Amino acid sequence: MSFAELWRELEPIGRDPATGGYRRYSWTEADAQCRAWFTRQADKRGLTVETDNNGNLWAWWGDARDDAVATGSHLDSVPDGGGYDGGLGVVAALAAVDLLREKDFHPERSVVLAVFTEEEGARFRVPCLGSRLLAGAVDPDAARALTGDDGVTLARAMTAAGRDAGLLGPREDLLAGLAAFVELHVEQGRALAPLGAAVGLAEGIWPHGRWRLGFAGRADHAGTARLDDRKDPMLPYARTVLAARRAAADHGALATIGKVIAEPGGANGVSAAVTAWLDARAPDEDRLEKTVGAVRSAALGFSSECGVTLSVRQESYTPPVRFDEGLRDRIAAVLAAAGLEPPVLSTGAGHDAGVLAARVPAAMLFVRNPTGVSHSPAEHADLADCEAGVRALAMVLEDLSCR
Amino acid sequence: MSFAELWRELEPIGRDPATGGYRRYSWTEADAQCRAWFTRQADKRGLTVETDNNGNLWAWWGDARDDAVATGSHLDSVPDGGGYDGGLGVVAALAAVDLLREKDFHPERSVVLAVFTEEEGARFRVPCLGSRLLAGAVDPDAARALTGDDGVTLARAMTAAGRDAGLLGPREDLLAGLAAFVELHVEQGRALAPLGAAVGLAEGIWPHGRWRLGFAGRADHAGTARLDDRKDPMLPYARTVLAARRAAADHGALATIGKVIAEPGGANGVSAAVTAWLDARAPDEDRLEKTVGAVRSAALGFSSECGVTLSVRQESYTPPVRFDEGLRDRIAAVLAAAGLEPPVLSTGAGHDAGVLAARVPAAMLFVRNPTGVSHSPAEHADLADCEAGVRALAMVLEDLSCR
Repeated sequence: MSFAELWRELEPIGRDPATGGYRRYSWTEADAQCRAWFTRQADKRGLTVETDNNGNLWAWWGDARDDAVATGSHLDSVPDGGGYDGGLGVVAALAAVDLLREKDFHPERSVVLAVFTEEEGARFRVPCLGSRLLAGAVDPDAARALTGDDGVTLARAMTAAGRDAGLLGPREDLLAGLAAFVELHVEQGRALAPLGAAVGLAEGIWPHGRWRLGFAGRADHAGTARLDDRKDPMLPYARTVLAARRAAADHGALATIGKVIAEPGGANGVSAAVTAWLDARAPDEDRLEKTVGAVRSAALGFSSECGVTLSVRQESYTPPVRFDEGLRDRIAAVLAAAGLEPPVLSTGAGHDAGVLAARVPAAMLFVRNPTGVSHSPAEHADLADCEAGVRALAMVLEDLSCR
Repeated sequence: MSFAELWRELEPIGRDPATGGYRRYSWTEADAQCRAWFTRQADKRGLTVETDNNGNLWAWWGDARDDAVATGSHLDSVPDGGGYDGGLGVVAALAAVDLLREKDFHPERSVVLAVFTEEEGARFRVPCLGSRLLAGAVDPDAARALTGDDGVTLARAMTAAGRDAGLLGPREDLLAGLAAFVELHVEQGRALAPLGAAVGLAEGIWPHGRWRLGFAGRADHAGTARLDDRKDPMLPYARTVLAARRAAADHGALATIGKVIAEPGGANGVSAAVTAWLDARAPDEDRLEKTVGAVRSAALGFSSECGVTLSVRQESYTPPVRFDEGLRDRIAAVLAAAGLEPPVLSTGAGHDAGVLAARVPAAMLFVRNPTGVSHSPAEHADLADCEAGVRALAMVLEDLSCR
């Protein structure tokens, strides 16, 4: 099947007709449809599909379970995300297998296509949850207790989806069987377009994390409580939003607050509490620490001036990742032989490949994003660039799967 | 029945066990329980209960439907509100009837106890919706289309509760039958405590309104979009929160943002849109206009600096209310005869009595709020003060219902 045909099949699943964005949250109906679609595609190609104990899908081309070459990405999305983020890597993996099969290629090493669960952390707030559980980077008990905004725990959500959350946990056997993992992903940023390159290679991932800021004040009547008597948590929250932006600019970092909940949320009341999530990323850990430290101490000062108490909790943290240099050099050589010179980029975005990089030689291919927009219904990649990515991935898999 | 006994019966209905606050939203199950409770109490006292076409309850003591003396308040709440706001006026009305019946009083004019629907606007965003519909101050078609956060219109919510929303609209006949309306309400502020008074009288209500501010930016990936490339609506929103506070302080007004929705709401994305509700109130319309004007132009400037578009829509507006002086003097004289000298106060809080004041001589009694806190689970009034309020209301009803 061509890339375009595969893409058209996946495209409508979990898409909100009003916004055009995706709401593919793990262990929901949309997620089940994504899984069923992937499984059908793998079946068609004679691949053996397994769902591991953490809910990740593995479609095996070849019987051997050791020394295998893995590729793939994820199918879940942020709220109103684009379809390329994750989906492109999965569709490209299937399309690359098709290219190789068309030329009657038979891999010496098994090739395995992976679909990781909850990469975005959109439902349970821990990004790369599926790959982290696989790699033993998240405690299974803590994972089971993770709770989404709907009040449902991961354990309950998995049970409702027919999975046994009691089995969550690391899989040394699976990891030990992987010789390499190569994730193809849409570029999230706009570095390739000015360079005129359709495909890039990842150097590393910035350290990044998520911090929950809880501002607790006192509910009051908006029409009667005097300004000076109020303990309005919205005020230190607002100052913290601005402080986060300043801190990021000061340290060459990124800081974003895209999720905020005011409680009780009445339009005619002073809030009792405002909870906000700070996403921060930087080229190195020192700059990240300085950025988050500046936000934290600013928030503390603002809160104390307003009679509000502040709690700060780190919800996730990902140290910097440097992808395997040997693997990157080998990929670059394969692509160079085909006349490609993919630029090497660092990114602020977390990826399952970044989690696996701690345990398995890992690499990433990026497909040009002409606007740089991602995590948005406006996210886009040109068909020709996606096809160039598929061809590059096929060449890489062909090379890596030969002993 | 004593006030305390009545209070204990109403107290648990619609209370959130986690916060201790109330979630009595109109046309929900909690609302139905409140209505059923009031109807049972009215039945016990031989009052005739009617639900009008707008969903307001009327319990009649006496057969005549003209020249009647009305009292009452509302039973709905803001999210996590206190139990006194509204509930106190309804319980006090029933308890006052009991005091009068105990002394075998028979009113010459009918006395009618009213419970108004959706006073807080917590579900459908228009405060005093029931009394406004009654008085013809809201268009019935517009009311039917009002939609809560759950996406349910008032029309659908009423249908689900077994009411016919097609009948919504003004009731000149009902209004024409009322000689006066006296609403007892918990004080929302802290003016009576320093004066050592358990009960106060209302002079007027500040003009006030609600404006919806829509900041529309562009969703982006928090880990890759460069700070300077972003159109992040959270930034002008945050600056607007602070500008609203400054504008209110500058003009001796009140301004509050207690409700905010960031979309799509992912923790690792730049928001596509932030919607916020500005509640503003001032001692006079000039100061209110200046306050809202300052917020609006600040928000516009901030938005334009951030590449964000701003929309501002007035969702509700209540002109200043001055309660009937003749009625107030008569009430003051009745209370003075009993040795009470209730202070006369203005308030920034809207009330059904304020809506009815345009059509019927209206007055309000306030019961001391020792902390001033309202729209909060911490809202409180002392039992002795509530009982003093009941006695005052009984004296007023006794006087007004004698020809």
